[in-house]
Amino acid sequence: RIDGKRLWDSLMAMAEIGATPRGGVRRLTLTEVDRQGRERFREWCEALGLTVRVDAIGNMFARREGRDPGRKPVLFGSHLDSQPSGGKFDGALGVLAGLEVMRTLNDLGIVTEAPLELVNWTDEEGSRFGHSLMGSGVWAGVYPLEKAYGLRDVEGVSVAEALERIGYRGPEPAAAFPADAYFELHIEQGPILEREGKQIGIVTGAQAQVWWDAVCTGQDSHAGTTPPAVRRDALVATARIIDLVDRMMRARGEDGRGTVGFVQVLPNSRNVVPGEVRFSVEFRHPETAEIERLAAEFPREAEAIARACGVGLELHELFRFPHQPFDPECVELVRQAAARLGYSAREIVSGAGHDAVYVARRVPTAMIFTPCKDGLSHNEAESILPEEAEAGCQVLFEAVLARANR
Amino acid sequence: RIDGKRLWDSLMAMAEIGATPRGGVRRLTLTEVDRQGRERFREWCEALGLTVRVDAIGNMFARREGRDPGRKPVLFGSHLDSQPSGGKFDGALGVLAGLEVMRTLNDLGIVTEAPLELVNWTDEEGSRFGHSLMGSGVWAGVYPLEKAYGLRDVEGVSVAEALERIGYRGPEPAAAFPADAYFELHIEQGPILEREGKQIGIVTGAQAQVWWDAVCTGQDSHAGTTPPAVRRDALVATARIIDLVDRMMRARGEDGRGTVGFVQVLPNSRNVVPGEVRFSVEFRHPETAEIERLAAEFPREAEAIARACGVGLELHELFRFPHQPFDPECVELVRQAAARLGYSAREIVSGAGHDAVYVARRVPTAMIFTPCKDGLSHNEAESILPEEAEAGCQVLFEAVLARANR
Ligand SMILES: NC(=O)NCCC(=O)O
Ligand SMILES: NC(=O)NCCC(=O)O
Repeated sequence: RIDGKRLWDSLMAMAEIGATPRGGVRRLTLTEVDRQGRERFREWCEALGLTVRVDAIGNMFARREGRDPGRKPVLFGSHLDSQPSGGKFDGALGVLAGLEVMRTLNDLGIVTEAPLELVNWTDEEGSRFGHSLMGSGVWAGVYPLEKAYGLRDVEGVSVAEALERIGYRGPEPAAAFPADAYFELHIEQGPILEREGKQIGIVTGAQAQVWWDAVCTGQDSHAGTTPPAVRRDALVATARIIDLVDRMMRARGEDGRGTVGFVQVLPNSRNVVPGEVRFSVEFRHPETAEIERLAAEFPREAEAIARACGVGLELHELFRFPHQPFDPECVELVRQAAARLGYSAREIVSGAGHDAVYVARRVPTAMIFTPCKDGLSHNEAESILPEEAEAGCQVLFEAVLARANR
Repeated sequence: RIDGKRLWDSLMAMAEIGATPRGGVRRLTLTEVDRQGRERFREWCEALGLTVRVDAIGNMFARREGRDPGRKPVLFGSHLDSQPSGGKFDGALGVLAGLEVMRTLNDLGIVTEAPLELVNWTDEEGSRFGHSLMGSGVWAGVYPLEKAYGLRDVEGVSVAEALERIGYRGPEPAAAFPADAYFELHIEQGPILEREGKQIGIVTGAQAQVWWDAVCTGQDSHAGTTPPAVRRDALVATARIIDLVDRMMRARGEDGRGTVGFVQVLPNSRNVVPGEVRFSVEFRHPETAEIERLAAEFPREAEAIARACGVGLELHELFRFPHQPFDPECVELVRQAAARLGYSAREIVSGAGHDAVYVARRVPTAMIFTPCKDGLSHNEAESILPEEAEAGCQVLFEAVLARANR
């Protein structure tokens, strides 16, 4: 049995790094704070005798050898980066539960057949450089390393520069190596498990997504003197596109997701008609076909709005991925573990993107969800109970052990 | 006659301070760049033998004595601060034309009956601290010095701190002293004079205005997992309010002005439903009654939108002022000067706010407008011709001289 108290203590210790006054965490990827989190993780791993490798995109792999040197490793983990005002558990739970799995195996003197590797993926959140699941995406070959290196944050710092600055541009190639399976424990970040009183979510797959970068270009001019007829207000056009995204989401009912989360107005002065607005747009849906429809319709309708406002619109599709089903055998191991341990459980489709989505393209993959308070995440108030973390970690332990010893 | 070439050279020399790559100026009030502009202005004044005083809000007064020590001074000037991406002439024209008036009087050896004072008002633009016409507003007693001192920029720096930092918290009381008249030359910042081919605008008054600070408060949550029904998206509500402002403006026809120029989204991350948005709202109209109606209707309708989106809305009215008519006698001096000099001219109501609006509450005031290219201002591409600047300056010279010698 894993040690729930030890797991909780690790979660709280990690949450000190980048702690915010309102009880959350700000540990943006590839910042100095992220470096501190990585260093603490590395020390903990090395104290267990694990060997830590870092690849060229900063992904960290902590290896525990198995009995059979010819076997491919079983991977598990998640991410230690956070949203700008994120919670203590999004990502950290999966990494530190993985650490607790390693500690428990050491305590029990268990040597698995296959080797085990605990992973901390780089930039899962995507909030700094615009691509979520960046480290796992490069690793899985979804997009080239050079493309990721060239992404820049709002200050103009590139991923390559940021990796250098914190000393995490590692020597290993950032590419999938042969692996037997990947398991990821994560908080649900949504309301379903809590509403139904279930302890464990058996994640069967993740919903489809499409993300854009958008720029509206009008003309900045004086707010007091520019008559309505000659205004080319990039913000009014953007506002109508934000409304469009919301309406397109709601037209899809309960399963629809459509969000503008990021907006930057130029010159952003009270008495200037805005000449330029940069913003993000994303849609998600459990069905790939719905995302394909949105990816076709949204640009058309948004451009019509911009035209009617007399402003230009540039849309740059950042990425689009279909519904990603997980591996039936790995999912079955999660189901069996939950059943054996007597936890209440249900099948669930992930609303969030996870590194598991990209890893699943290369390696048989499954995920385990645990509930979180009010389904709230990407919020400093994100909250879970120690016994919820413990249950998820116990299921992870059993699924990993079953796979590694099969 | 004033020296048009010398005036133009001063304008170009001032435009070097805070010059932007796209040909504009970024000389935000009370920054290091503003300090440099002030220092250059001060040196130029002192080289003419003028005495420069600075008051507690940083307003600068450069005095030239008259023949009659008992007479109240005639004031003229404008402002040297700029928008974040502003033009070379907005404000600077009025100050440097005033300097050219002083230089010409020196050249001609003229001593006026009344003393003359050339003014550089602090923070006319309002884009950093949220109150336009700040220095003149405090001087005229429109709002208390302590209130102005407490205003803060987005970084949290207060006006009092910013004044200290650049050494412009002066010893003189920031309060209106007896003055005989105030004249301000400014570019029109709108399309009317250019469209009608007029060289001079005889400004009869300025339109009414109301400005708010607004905060929408919802709840940040995960973009992928938060179902439409439970979202409390502060940005969707803000978008609908931006659309409302535009519709309320257009409902007033050609004379309507309504603008949201500033927006700040929190946490501003692509995959987070925004929990908070701070933004500005302003309306303007030549008729006071229309602004009163807008000031009553807008909060009601905006609150209804916020309620329908399940978010909170706080509106803080920053200021409201009625249509401000200028002094008929001073306006008449401008009209006569333009006629005597043979310039084509028309009467005009100012669309922009100007320090003259507040000064007019204390001192008989008039303004002179000159055209600008495409009516464009609050834009780096703002542009005027040397002969347009010269004409405006010549009218200023004659009006000031007529008033000071009457
Ligand atoms: N798990 C999680 O919050 N991932 C961030 C990527 C996304 O789903 O937007
Ligand atoms: N003249 C000018 O641009 N003033 C700024 C204040 C305003 O009208 O918004």
